[in-house]
Amino acid sequence: MTKTNPGNYFEDFKLGQEIVHATPRTVTEGDMALYVALTGSRFPLHSADTFAQDLGYEGATIDDVLAFHVVFGKTVPDISLNAVANLGYAAGRFGEPVYPGDTLSSVSEVIGLKENSNGKTGTVYVRSIGVNQRGEMVLDYCRWVMVRKRDESAPAPEAVVPDLPDAVPVSDLIVPAGAGFATYDTVAAGSPHLWDDYSAGEKIDHVDGMTIEESEHAMATRLYQNTARVHFNQHTEKEGRFGRRLIYGGHIISIARALSFNGLANAVRVAAINGGRHVAPTFAGDTIYAWTEILEKQEIPDRRDIGALRLRTIAVKDRACADFPNVGADGKTDPSVVLDLDYTVLVPRRVG
Amino acid sequence: MTKTNPGNYFEDFKLGQEIVHATPRTVTEGDMALYVALTGSRFPLHSADTFAQDLGYEGATIDDVLAFHVVFGKTVPDISLNAVANLGYAAGRFGEPVYPGDTLSSVSEVIGLKENSNGKTGTVYVRSIGVNQRGEMVLDYCRWVMVRKRDESAPAPEAVVPDLPDAVPVSDLIVPAGAGFATYDTVAAGSPHLWDDYSAGEKIDHVDGMTIEESEHAMATRLYQNTARVHFNQHTEKEGRFGRRLIYGGHIISIARALSFNGLANAVRVAAINGGRHVAPTFAGDTIYAWTEILEKQEIPDRRDIGALRLRTIAVKDRACADFPNVGADGKTDPSVVLDLDYTVLVPRRVG
Amino acid sequence: MTKTNPGNYFEDFKLGQEIVHATPRTVTEGDMALYVALTGSRFPLHSADTFAQDLGYEGATIDDVLAFHVVFGKTVPDISLNAVANLGYAAGRFGEPVYPGDTLSSVSEVIGLKENSNGKTGTVYVRSIGVNQRGEMVLDYCRWVMVRKRDESAPAPEAVVPDLPDAVPVSDLIVPAGAGFATYDTVAAGSPHLWDDYSAGEKIDHVDGMTIEESEHAMATRLYQNTARVHFNQHTEKEGRFGRRLIYGGHIISIARALSFNGLANAVRVAAINGGRHVAPTFAGDTIYAWTEILEKQEIPDRRDIGALRLRTIAVKDRACADFPNVGADGKTDPSVVLDLDYTVLVPRRVG
Repeated sequence: MTKTNPGNYFEDFKLGQEIVHATPRTVTEGDMALYVALTGSRFPLHSADTFAQDLGYEGATIDDVLAFHVVFGKTVPDISLNAVANLGYAAGRFGEPVYPGDTLSSVSEVIGLKENSNGKTGTVYVRSIGVNQRGEMVLDYCRWVMVRKRDESAPAPEAVVPDLPDAVPVSDLIVPAGAGFATYDTVAAGSPHLWDDYSAGEKIDHVDGMTIEESEHAMATRLYQNTARVHFNQHTEKEGRFGRRLIYGGHIISIARALSFNGLANAVRVAAINGGRHVAPTFAGDTIYAWTEILEKQEIPDRRDIGALRLRTIAVKDRACADFPNVGADGKTDPSVVLDLDYTVLVPRRVG
Repeated sequence: MTKTNPGNYFEDFKLGQEIVHATPRTVTEGDMALYVALTGSRFPLHSADTFAQDLGYEGATIDDVLAFHVVFGKTVPDISLNAVANLGYAAGRFGEPVYPGDTLSSVSEVIGLKENSNGKTGTVYVRSIGVNQRGEMVLDYCRWVMVRKRDESAPAPEAVVPDLPDAVPVSDLIVPAGAGFATYDTVAAGSPHLWDDYSAGEKIDHVDGMTIEESEHAMATRLYQNTARVHFNQHTEKEGRFGRRLIYGGHIISIARALSFNGLANAVRVAAINGGRHVAPTFAGDTIYAWTEILEKQEIPDRRDIGALRLRTIAVKDRACADFPNVGADGKTDPSVVLDLDYTVLVPRRVG
Repeated sequence: MTKTNPGNYFEDFKLGQEIVHATPRTVTEGDMALYVALTGSRFPLHSADTFAQDLGYEGATIDDVLAFHVVFGKTVPDISLNAVANLGYAAGRFGEPVYPGDTLSSVSEVIGLKENSNGKTGTVYVRSIGVNQRGEMVLDYCRWVMVRKRDESAPAPEAVVPDLPDAVPVSDLIVPAGAGFATYDTVAAGSPHLWDDYSAGEKIDHVDGMTIEESEHAMATRLYQNTARVHFNQHTEKEGRFGRRLIYGGHIISIARALSFNGLANAVRVAAINGGRHVAPTFAGDTIYAWTEILEKQEIPDRRDIGALRLRTIAVKDRACADFPNVGADGKTDPSVVLDLDYTVLVPRRVG
């Protein structure tokens, strides 16, 4: 029996199977500093203890997207080591805030299986839950990936495709019970624009561009202990489809979220990931830009201090976004588009 | 109204105006580790809790230059987003030591304005103060930048050029009251050369060279949440004057200070920035060297355990400094020179 | 007298001489995060406080190899600044676990000297001990380096070559007294393979490859405050033997150890470095692979919960290891081999 991890193949997954993922990870101030160094993130809740404490938090929290990457990274050796493609996300909800010193671990349940007609691959749907050292949920999301079969002659399982929501309903969003945003300091946060100021249909060009270097995406991806090989091994990738290492799609989410500060500075928390698609691969040397459309403006039940905005953020490469490059379902997606992310953020409201 | 930050233009600044900068930043052991990884700094007060505690500090302190970068970085979105050039520094004083866990924020006052004769730009003089979470000053300095006008027809303000000192007088230097250097351990520090051993006029070649990679300067600059675009966006910079990303001038200060350990290992603290000029731009692939001239040797009132040295450190690129490349005011500055920094350090004295 | 450090030359070393190295270093969570980002290490004892505490540790410990690099880095300015080659290691034992917040410092004793017949260089043997802030040994190892003479006419010292063991005997291994591995969680650790499952003579291909970028090895080496110039200065190295910067050999040890997780996930601790040789230089762009042979399987006296495996890990560049590239003493070493490391790890045993 080999002692190295071959990863799971399509026929290894069983409906209802629970997979406890390895390598619990204590996230620290070291991870926070690296995350800022690699993304340039400026969201104040993750930047300053004082700012966070003024809102009722214990201190600065780990960036939601960083927490996502750690929880996601744990799942890779079991779920997607033999994946051909990362197909989508849905029903992602962020729960307890993550503080430096918290230890995250992940568990997944197989919620759907569907073999492809070519008999070589199949789609695996999983629901993955990240918890802290007290077992409290910090992230709960679904993703589906196309995974190779080990043995093409293995029989296909009964096809089960889970019924996943288009978006997380506002009633399911988790707003930290102990935090209050009535005293939110827009000057310290860097923008006067609160929930009240945004409108459904509004489009925001985030203006700035960020070029990604080979070492930067590799450091980020290793930091999350994500072991997907295509990001790290130039010796094999130079013979591969693209001739080079692929950037972890999650790093593009990080960059897009960091860029979105310019225009959405008060989007203090990511509350949900409704859906998302890595539209095209990215490589070292690419410069990432982003723009956002406000899809919905949502009141949160029983909260007057904070509201939700459902956003669609589009990241592109090597092209400015002043004209909001198209990602229409009409097949005319701009070829520069690399990420199409549907998510929900919390934004303080104007009070009084 | 656009929700992204357009930055201030020359005509937006008013004499006496106070600007509270966004994004307070808790500096941590994560930042300290990254600073060492990016610069190779070995000054022991920032390296070892034990060493610092033996001198009366609570523990290792944040590198003074790192604190400078964080305080400076806060000012960029308001002061220099539309700057053409960073012209100079003066009257910089370091105050309270910064410890991991401290939260820094910055505020600036406009202390001078002078439109240029071309009517397209003007010089803005600001005094910026960085404070910790208790409101204690950690850095107080002046800089002036050339900023574009939004509208060239806007009327020029009355020209006011502040009277800035050539150097911070020794009586204004802040020496930590609770720290004593009589028991300073030169073996642990790495050099026997104390304040007593230096002479005005002495020149020191710091010998070593450090090559800077694209990802290194970008990570450093993002770590400080400095948003100046020329450091990050290859897609636009490839069309610009240099065809590539510029290295943040402050990173050259970091590298020069780190290199100066070899010859000035006991310069435990930067106490003042008297002046400074980024003589030429630097780019990824450049190898930085440095040399220092001791400008003045200063006794500190009421302190027998520590003295001050006013230094002029010259950083150059792609050229060793054994012959102390010239930076004379005679116009014969060596073309390799990239930084000319006038600052004051504290150095323990030989006791008994 | 020059104030910069010229390093020691062969004739500066005296048998029995003790050298207290400079720059004590408090290792922190920042260093741990950078180490993960630079190596991708997943060993759970260094990854999660909870996992470590379940075994009786105070919390996650600093990676043994990271501790090695810090202790080693301290010795460079005194021992190997003028070294031509790092020839070997022996008798390395890891002692007290290192926790974030511990301050490491190093001291070396000269235990051997042998001038080479060319009269230009000599071999210096040192035993270096790294201790924490309580003076407890964390690492005790010997290495020998070939060092240039300053003056070729200086007389040769009496040749003394220390008698170093081929391997650290199992009775000398230090197993943390307070830690117990009976409750070791193989699911969280990521592999079911315990000490019982390995056999002497077994070979394991670690499968994955990791490409190293220029900024990555430079950041790692600076993090350890290792000042060996060949790693940092492209301006001089471009004129040197290889035309480029050399990667610090220790970084290859880090990468090989991190890669070895895939096949040796439960090798929770490095207990000894028996010997090692940097067979060939590595450069940015190289992709490192590794394989391991189990040399010996050792019971630890009075411990039923944990055993030792003496390993030989071979790292190679730009070549997969499925066929275990040869490193035979027969002179037919595969040209891709860059590291040949003989070390001992602790692995929990199956209990009951």
